[in-house]
Amino acid sequence: MLTLRRLGIDAYRENIAFLRRDCAVVRAADFQVLNRVEIFAVGADGRPNGRAIRATLNLVDPGAVLQASELGVSDEAFAQLGLGEGSAVGIAPASPPASADALHAKVMGRSLSEAELRLLVTDVVANRYSKMELAAFVVAAANAFSRDEVLALTRAMIDAGTRLDWSAQGNTRMIVDKHSIGGIPGNRTSMIVVPIVAAHGLTCPKTSSRAITSPAGTADTMEVLARVALDAQEMRQVVEREHGCLVWGGHVNLSPADDIFIAVERPLSIDSPEQMVASILSKKAAAGVTHLVLDLPVGPTAKLRNTEDATNLRKLFEYVADAIGLIIEVIFTDGSQPIGRGIGPVLEARDVMAVLRNEPDAPADLRDKSLLLAARMLEFDPALRGGGGMQRARQLLASGAALAAMQRIMAAQGPPPEQCAPAALTMEIKAERSGMIAGIDCLHLARIARLAGAPFVKGAGIDLLEKTGAHVQAGQPLYRLHAGLASDLGFALKYALSDNGYRVSS
Amino acid sequence: MLTLRRLGIDAYRENIAFLRRDCAVVRAADFQVLNRVEIFAVGADGRPNGRAIRATLNLVDPGAVLQASELGVSDEAFAQLGLGEGSAVGIAPASPPASADALHAKVMGRSLSEAELRLLVTDVVANRYSKMELAAFVVAAANAFSRDEVLALTRAMIDAGTRLDWSAQGNTRMIVDKHSIGGIPGNRTSMIVVPIVAAHGLTCPKTSSRAITSPAGTADTMEVLARVALDAQEMRQVVEREHGCLVWGGHVNLSPADDIFIAVERPLSIDSPEQMVASILSKKAAAGVTHLVLDLPVGPTAKLRNTEDATNLRKLFEYVADAIGLIIEVIFTDGSQPIGRGIGPVLEARDVMAVLRNEPDAPADLRDKSLLLAARMLEFDPALRGGGGMQRARQLLASGAALAAMQRIMAAQGPPPEQCAPAALTMEIKAERSGMIAGIDCLHLARIARLAGAPFVKGAGIDLLEKTGAHVQAGQPLYRLHAGLASDLGFALKYALSDNGYRVSS
Repeated sequence: MLTLRRLGIDAYRENIAFLRRDCAVVRAADFQVLNRVEIFAVGADGRPNGRAIRATLNLVDPGAVLQASELGVSDEAFAQLGLGEGSAVGIAPASPPASADALHAKVMGRSLSEAELRLLVTDVVANRYSKMELAAFVVAAANAFSRDEVLALTRAMIDAGTRLDWSAQGNTRMIVDKHSIGGIPGNRTSMIVVPIVAAHGLTCPKTSSRAITSPAGTADTMEVLARVALDAQEMRQVVEREHGCLVWGGHVNLSPADDIFIAVERPLSIDSPEQMVASILSKKAAAGVTHLVLDLPVGPTAKLRNTEDATNLRKLFEYVADAIGLIIEVIFTDGSQPIGRGIGPVLEARDVMAVLRNEPDAPADLRDKSLLLAARMLEFDPALRGGGGMQRARQLLASGAALAAMQRIMAAQGPPPEQCAPAALTMEIKAERSGMIAGIDCLHLARIARLAGAPFVKGAGIDLLEKTGAHVQAGQPLYRLHAGLASDLGFALKYALSDNGYRVSS
Repeated sequence: MLTLRRLGIDAYRENIAFLRRDCAVVRAADFQVLNRVEIFAVGADGRPNGRAIRATLNLVDPGAVLQASELGVSDEAFAQLGLGEGSAVGIAPASPPASADALHAKVMGRSLSEAELRLLVTDVVANRYSKMELAAFVVAAANAFSRDEVLALTRAMIDAGTRLDWSAQGNTRMIVDKHSIGGIPGNRTSMIVVPIVAAHGLTCPKTSSRAITSPAGTADTMEVLARVALDAQEMRQVVEREHGCLVWGGHVNLSPADDIFIAVERPLSIDSPEQMVASILSKKAAAGVTHLVLDLPVGPTAKLRNTEDATNLRKLFEYVADAIGLIIEVIFTDGSQPIGRGIGPVLEARDVMAVLRNEPDAPADLRDKSLLLAARMLEFDPALRGGGGMQRARQLLASGAALAAMQRIMAAQGPPPEQCAPAALTMEIKAERSGMIAGIDCLHLARIARLAGAPFVKGAGIDLLEKTGAHVQAGQPLYRLHAGLASDLGFALKYALSDNGYRVSS
């Protein structure tokens, strides 16, 4: 028997076990090469009590971080085992998870059945795979995944977590939502759309993600204004009272397999149509959404580069949504440059509030896009006259009804965890030559904002001073960097000076 | 500036960096999510001195294994940085390796050019990719990799390491070798073939691998009889004197990219034709081999399940070998069951010596297969009359010339690091019913031998008492497990009792 030791190492969602090379209890070399092990709790009677996890094994030298009879674990493994420090544990070679054959078949290019995908999702959610194995699956699926596999995976992912049911509040008719596939910095339309449709009286229980590789997610930006880390019960209370919410999905356990897949897809920059569809639709269906407006930005540096790709993706969304009984409306939007002016939580929240307050200098592109999306959501309402969505959306925004709805939602969710302002260290990036701004690289600006500290420093990021179509003089400021630390400002500046992301044509 | 600390953690070929969550020098959260960082040495002048590595970042809690101003690293990262403990280092977000776009293109299904594959292999050998990224590449390549990509990858892999040149010893004619694609336990023909062809006077500088997921590699088995961890210079001396050698390739740096790919392919059970060809031919060409006999075992539990697959693989080997100027002879062999009796280094070495000593009860299948392969290699010799290879091989074996050559090679390589005998704890696995042995599962027996401790305990493994075609009575022993530790015997026994791997038909 070994003694469990939490090493306080965060291996970013991976179960890692650490064993001394000269372990006094088992021979470490036995486990090293296949390097997947099972760790099990040992009860008072000296026998396994049934609680077990799988982990990747790292060997540790004598005299380093462990005693010879200790088994160290990463934070993820410790949390999953659910035992106290010093508990008695055993270790054994891990037999492959039940779905290992299916995973291997997929890697070798075979199609999987719904039963195989269900087994696989079960093992994924139980953390039985290493990140290397998960990467193998997502890459294989990005290369060959039929429509019916996407559908089967979506169904399995929905069933693998919590499914919200809104019928208890007597509203079985319609749960509306909107989603953007992302990739466009500053694109915080949800924070305007949700108050508009909630003010109209439609129910919109919006859950959002935090940024993983982008400079801000809707959850990060909303957190500048209100608490977002609500659990399912708290979220329900807000929605019952205010018709809408803007919360972080992390505490709600909707499609947990999606979060695990994303943790490997993002570092690998995998954004295949098949994975987007399974990811988004599983989350929405699990949230109890019945009517969805989907925003597909198309542009040279967006996820979708041309209309052909966008159309193929639209059809895949429609195929799966129809099969799982979700009404979907897909809209192609302009993805040629960032939306609004701010990139980063505080700067984006400022733009959102400027639109909701009808301020004269509020970013027009953010307002117009939000109205377009809100209009299409309002059209789901059978009571509204066909084609009347845009007029209704404009009216709710102009009258201040949307702003009032936003303020009620903020109050219902609670105050934000910290008060934030734009970060104090700034630096302007200037045009290298005179001419017209012909394009702004979304990926590049996202990376610069991220290096400046967004989203971890809420006030960090970029404030765009000029956008596509404007004429600029050489030396004229294009955008302003905001950072909280000199080192971050340095990282961002170095990258921005190598290429500022603006294409200026003479 | 941070202080470098070696944590003594072996992350199995992966560069891992550990940083305190509350680091006093940089904000750890900046680096966490993209989680690939660059670690660079800081010179006496306080500036980066050019030495840098890439690593995956894990965050560590205060009070755990690190001080707040320390940067911990895994053994791999420490070795690669080449700095002393306590050295001043800095950390920065890692920009993607030069070949990142190519890797991503491959993941998304595009073919890569030779230039792109060269760039990628350079980054792989410089350890610039995480295992997750490497897994993404090997899976994408397993799904779609053209013949010309295989050829280009092979060339890039050859050029990325040491290339042995045998012309200095005046032997520019012919360097012969044999290789088996593996998967058949006990298949230690190299240790018989090399002495035969060396006794004839052909030059055969054989490098082999240690087992990764199998119960024994040729290097593990040869190490029972002689030292195998020779460097390139020592290997050259042995070959110059004895015409042949049987050494471990790990110190020779032939096709180092191959070793890195294998470290992710094996745990993922990826054995695609494309990867086998690039792996084997890059190693052989780098070793200076000019004439190769390739053993492709075909059988229901072998890597190749049928003649069609074997033929496709043969053609791919021929295509690439022709293009790189390597003469290849491909032989399909019986892969329906293990070869010889022993599985595990000591037991396999016993079988090999029994064949070389012409003992009457030496395993006939091991002897016959070795003679077949040696005969084909001998036919490469222009001086030999066409069709005379088998007769010559038999003669060299029967006369004791092969045994004498083996003994000279053993003496030249030096004594083994330890004296080993079959492991003392034994247990017999018995037939559950009477009948004829219709098949033996190679994969299953390999797994049982591995659980019993092979190859780490050299004397551990399996001794086969009955093979395919034999008639057995219920209760009659089929094979004997050998283990060095009671826990290993328990792991192996549990697995063998759930399924003994023998198919007995009545």
